[in-house]
Amino acid sequence: MHTIADISIVPLGVGLSLSKYVAACEKVLQEAGLQPKLHAYGTNVEGDWDTVFAALRKCHEILHEMGAPRVSTNLRCGTRTDRAQTGEDKVQSVREKMELGDS
Amino acid sequence: MHTIADISIVPLGVGLSLSKYVAACEKVLQEAGLQPKLHAYGTNVEGDWDTVFAALRKCHEILHEMGAPRVSTNLRCGTRTDRAQTGEDKVQSVREKMELGDS
Amino acid sequence: MHTIADISIVPLGVGLSLSKYVAACEKVLQEAGLQPKLHAYGTNVEGDWDTVFAALRKCHEILHEMGAPRVSTNLRCGTRTDRAQTGEDKVQSVREKMELGDS
Amino acid sequence: MHTIADISIVPLGVGLSLSKYVAACEKVLQEAGLQPKLHAYGTNVEGDWDTVFAALRKCHEILHEMGAPRVSTNLRCGTRTDRAQTGEDKVQSVREKMELGDS
Repeated sequence: MHTIADISIVPLGVGLSLSKYVAACEKVLQEAGLQPKLHAYGTNVEGDWDTVFAALRKCHEILHEMGAPRVSTNLRCGTRTDRAQTGEDKVQSVREKMELGDS
Repeated sequence: MHTIADISIVPLGVGLSLSKYVAACEKVLQEAGLQPKLHAYGTNVEGDWDTVFAALRKCHEILHEMGAPRVSTNLRCGTRTDRAQTGEDKVQSVREKMELGDS
Repeated sequence: MHTIADISIVPLGVGLSLSKYVAACEKVLQEAGLQPKLHAYGTNVEGDWDTVFAALRKCHEILHEMGAPRVSTNLRCGTRTDRAQTGEDKVQSVREKMELGDS
Repeated sequence: MHTIADISIVPLGVGLSLSKYVAACEKVLQEAGLQPKLHAYGTNVEGDWDTVFAALRKCHEILHEMGAPRVSTNLRCGTRTDRAQTGEDKVQSVREKMELGDS
């Protein structure tokens, strides 16, 4: 089962600067082959369901190893059976509608 | 690794009444032993990480089998290594602070 | 416009124990008349859209006043125009489907 | 109060193709001056708190006008008082850490 997901992971109890923790998670997601696309409030990933969630688990484990006593994730994930669709397809589909709306 | 999570699952393309789909997910979460506590915008669960995410996958699969071509989940999940904590502990801890604040 | 919402607010940079901050937010939401129902990973509220979001803003402001340099919220909110519905209606509707499923 | 947010809006009861609804929301967010950056599972915005939440309300209203009887949003929003930060700053900060990690 293929899924497109968006992951926002927050380590707690490590102060205010979270970027090195986010960078460590990006590396996990890249190494899992999930094509992470970082944005200002999370990261898009896509791939096989089990691969995505094994990588998410590894992110929690690595942040704990880096010293975070608590880790909290907010995740959106979607599956569909009607047709194959990538994250890029989703974005492109909206852009086409926006251009139509402009004309 | 133990996790406390909150899951909100939405089937798309099945009209407006989602309660029978939510009920089917509750059953999956119960049968997985995750002590689901339904609220007005999701369901609290807690248990072993892999059990939680295997059950979430099963929820997506069952909603697809029930006829939903798209399923979208929003999930919060937390892990902590400093101490054991249940969902009930979390709620109780806030209530104690509220009572202190009232006095 | 009426909305049912679920709010999870996390102060960052204040250590690990978040319950006194959550308790302060509960008080804000109660005083706004939003009938907050605390659960293990957030709080259900319902009421007029502008009242809900004014209260959410006040929660951020109060956590900053309490010393949190960063505050991050995850929120779900829903509106519907087909019929009036409370959070309790939503939960009850699922419970009825579960009982039917059990019989 | 400045906020960086990420908004995922889903109209329910309108079938499977949501892109025209997302496109309509993008337009609302653009016209509000919130610099929306669309990704595969939501849209980053940033600006004054009240401007962001007035625009979110307008998105719900417009989707209802377009025929959606239910609209459900998942939103992340953050505020900070320690320093000014844009969404681009957040992304850049992670990228720098990733490059350090690679060397």
